[in-house]
Amino acid sequence: MTLNVLVWGENRHEQIEPHVREIYPDGMHETIAAGIRENLSDAKVSTTTLDEPEHGLTDEVLAGTDVLVWWGHAAHGEVDDKVVDRVYQHVLSGMGLIVLHSGHWSKIFGKLMGTTCTLRWRSERDRELVWTINPTHPIAQGVPHPIVIEQQEMYGEFFDIPVPDELVFVSSFSGGEVFRSGCTFRRGHGKIFYFSPGDQDYPVYHHKDVRKVIANGVKWARTDLPERALPTLLRYETDDFFNGHGYSGPIEEPADA
Amino acid sequence: MTLNVLVWGENRHEQIEPHVREIYPDGMHETIAAGIRENLSDAKVSTTTLDEPEHGLTDEVLAGTDVLVWWGHAAHGEVDDKVVDRVYQHVLSGMGLIVLHSGHWSKIFGKLMGTTCTLRWRSERDRELVWTINPTHPIAQGVPHPIVIEQQEMYGEFFDIPVPDELVFVSSFSGGEVFRSGCTFRRGHGKIFYFSPGDQDYPVYHHKDVRKVIANGVKWARTDLPERALPTLLRYETDDFFNGHGYSGPIEEPADA
Amino acid sequence: MTLNVLVWGENRHEQIEPHVREIYPDGMHETIAAGIRENLSDAKVSTTTLDEPEHGLTDEVLAGTDVLVWWGHAAHGEVDDKVVDRVYQHVLSGMGLIVLHSGHWSKIFGKLMGTTCTLRWRSERDRELVWTINPTHPIAQGVPHPIVIEQQEMYGEFFDIPVPDELVFVSSFSGGEVFRSGCTFRRGHGKIFYFSPGDQDYPVYHHKDVRKVIANGVKWARTDLPERALPTLLRYETDDFFNGHGYSGPIEEPADA
Amino acid sequence: MTLNVLVWGENRHEQIEPHVREIYPDGMHETIAAGIRENLSDAKVSTTTLDEPEHGLTDEVLAGTDVLVWWGHAAHGEVDDKVVDRVYQHVLSGMGLIVLHSGHWSKIFGKLMGTTCTLRWRSERDRELVWTINPTHPIAQGVPHPIVIEQQEMYGEFFDIPVPDELVFVSSFSGGEVFRSGCTFRRGHGKIFYFSPGDQDYPVYHHKDVRKVIANGVKWARTDLPERALPTLLRYETDDFFNGHGYSGPIEEPADA
Repeated sequence: MTLNVLVWGENRHEQIEPHVREIYPDGMHETIAAGIRENLSDAKVSTTTLDEPEHGLTDEVLAGTDVLVWWGHAAHGEVDDKVVDRVYQHVLSGMGLIVLHSGHWSKIFGKLMGTTCTLRWRSERDRELVWTINPTHPIAQGVPHPIVIEQQEMYGEFFDIPVPDELVFVSSFSGGEVFRSGCTFRRGHGKIFYFSPGDQDYPVYHHKDVRKVIANGVKWARTDLPERALPTLLRYETDDFFNGHGYSGPIEEPADA
Repeated sequence: MTLNVLVWGENRHEQIEPHVREIYPDGMHETIAAGIRENLSDAKVSTTTLDEPEHGLTDEVLAGTDVLVWWGHAAHGEVDDKVVDRVYQHVLSGMGLIVLHSGHWSKIFGKLMGTTCTLRWRSERDRELVWTINPTHPIAQGVPHPIVIEQQEMYGEFFDIPVPDELVFVSSFSGGEVFRSGCTFRRGHGKIFYFSPGDQDYPVYHHKDVRKVIANGVKWARTDLPERALPTLLRYETDDFFNGHGYSGPIEEPADA
Repeated sequence: MTLNVLVWGENRHEQIEPHVREIYPDGMHETIAAGIRENLSDAKVSTTTLDEPEHGLTDEVLAGTDVLVWWGHAAHGEVDDKVVDRVYQHVLSGMGLIVLHSGHWSKIFGKLMGTTCTLRWRSERDRELVWTINPTHPIAQGVPHPIVIEQQEMYGEFFDIPVPDELVFVSSFSGGEVFRSGCTFRRGHGKIFYFSPGDQDYPVYHHKDVRKVIANGVKWARTDLPERALPTLLRYETDDFFNGHGYSGPIEEPADA
Repeated sequence: MTLNVLVWGENRHEQIEPHVREIYPDGMHETIAAGIRENLSDAKVSTTTLDEPEHGLTDEVLAGTDVLVWWGHAAHGEVDDKVVDRVYQHVLSGMGLIVLHSGHWSKIFGKLMGTTCTLRWRSERDRELVWTINPTHPIAQGVPHPIVIEQQEMYGEFFDIPVPDELVFVSSFSGGEVFRSGCTFRRGHGKIFYFSPGDQDYPVYHHKDVRKVIANGVKWARTDLPERALPTLLRYETDDFFNGHGYSGPIEEPADA
């Protein structure tokens, strides 16, 4: 069954910074998309960017997206709150979400986490080693232990996220910092994978193993539910487990009204 | 060391519904506060309500509160977003938070969870049995297994919350439903305990064991950190682990500006 | 790819107790196997029992088994320790394991858990309701919420197991008890699913939804690793991440020998 | 209330290797004990060693011990299985257990974990940085982020343990490896803390911050239960939640006996 994937890229650095354009002539979003197509033969992968109308994330587009992949950095604040809420509803209803690198500070990730999602950082060409902490996890399959990334931006703990449902990878950097670089979360009916390697200043999204992990994450994040559905508050009569009733309000008619 | 506790109650049902006023003549918030004082001799417990200016939750009040206890139901929507955000910042900075019963649907709990926090329900005098799933947890100490609550509102799964950091209690109801009734979460530097028993229509907050659990939760939720501090994003030079620098922006001067 | 499944049944109750033989004329193990075949078209399902040589669990058999399903009750103590250890090594090396009902007290489950695995119980035809706590989990797909089992043996908390990696189901019983009835664990390179419904005195393994869950569990438990491998202690030279060396002993030649 | 702590040390390296005797003239066990006394004023700390009768771990000694601290390395195999089982029963009954460094491969830790507890290693004077992943945890209080240990034995992932209940610290080493160095587990009624820093070849147990963490761990591991009690399997009649009955056997008299 076709796996519909949409890669959302901010596409600002590529416009403004020549050195980024050199590393990612097609834009980070297209590079990430190519990596997914390479690894998942049944995936139909599209891309869209911040500057499209509605940031390319209409309700129709989201309804047809099994997994959304998010890369943002310089313009988190420009993402429209209405669109963020739309994406949020779709994730809670069953759309998978992959959040990459600086996406840790995106509105959508923060909304789903409920924390600041802050961390420590430095961009000085540290070597990153991505170690597998959960060797039987589907996301960890097909990559070496460790994945070696010669030049990367350092991200370090304390990474202010809720305790991940599953910790798949932990990275170290030349400077000695460590970071929980591969984490899964379930929110509502949606599955989320956060993966930190990647930065506009380094060719990380061309890295064979990074592309493999992102593809594994996309495959994992697709829902097992038969259809999209938002968890809802319903009332159930005694012994009737299968017919819920909508909420009519918290206060009964006041007796002394 | 004095433990400063503030019990926030909506105090609407008590005004509008005589049968609630009968069960809780001092208001639910005062009843809950009395239960905490009974069990924690070093606690200084105050109360405040929705209709106070700023809902009684000024920055000064919050800064002096070690643990905030929250009960709301009919008027979640009336809680000012600015106040919600203020409470949120304080929790992430180290203020403990206890969320009770229908508080599952409060703005503050939803913001910290990142999910709908919906559930199934029925108010038909089910008997609730609160079973201990984590017998060595400090919150579970000093209460029977199970806690028997003769009349209660039923809450049932699927309770749309993130997987709790710790599952302390699971309840069953006469009708057969089950619910994760005692859950802990850490968000930022704050500790949160959600405890479901309690409803305006039943005298649950007079129940000896329910009062004991709430007090245990308050004691547990007090921070171990020396002072309140919000997790922050900082840059760290190589080999300088202890001096972080503020964030100056994501984009360097464009070379072709 | 063929999924090789082996259902291990104690097959003692069926011999000794006529009422059990009536409910399970082919034995519980064959009934469970039939349920798996019904639901997994690519599964090749065999059965074996306690009284076979080596309990039917030779190294060769285990090496060819992707997932082992275990039901035991009256004769846990008769399972040979050497065989238990053999199964243990295979699970840690990647063989999946499904433990059913009274198997909670089997030697193999206890060895993998490290706890007493005790619980509370009663066999008085309680109705069991199996509620889904993790609706997006693959094991929870395709069954109603709740699964209704008209007559069952009650299992109640405190179930002395380590905190499960994932809590999939929680059950309630007519008497009011609750139990964490569907739990996953990873041990070494192996995946384990414990599912409590089922008892020799009730026709639970003929129940459509119970058979579906067991099949889901079997499918989930199959390893994603390319081959079976036991985690091993190895020494690694600096900067050589991929060539581990065997352990030669903890003490160097004493300088004053 | 006095906290009774017993530090168990193998005390073999100290006898055999002069360089170890130089670093730890009183033995590692006495050094560790001194660190605990320094940090916990209400602790009464004793030590014992492998070569004592019953390894110093009689039932009477264990019954009077609130928290047992374990360091072993070269002689894991010499610890008597009967004594291991005795310690195991006491931990499951409520005795706290701190396992240090090479104790990862002790019989007692392996029995409680149910896995191989293997890892990768190298002893080449790597610098270890111990980073706090859970800043609000009591065990993480009062130490810098990171703790800097100039010379240490490297331990690296994949550390074959079950997913920890709580991940408190993650370490990095000069060579780039990472390791989950501070982990908590609950087993039965007992609390366990595993902390990896420390090795006979380096003066780690003299390190101020390492001593602080061990003391924090000891304090955390003391039970909150009123008395020691092993989880037990009991039968409960319908509606009688508080009077359990002992297990009388799995098979009723065969009807056709």
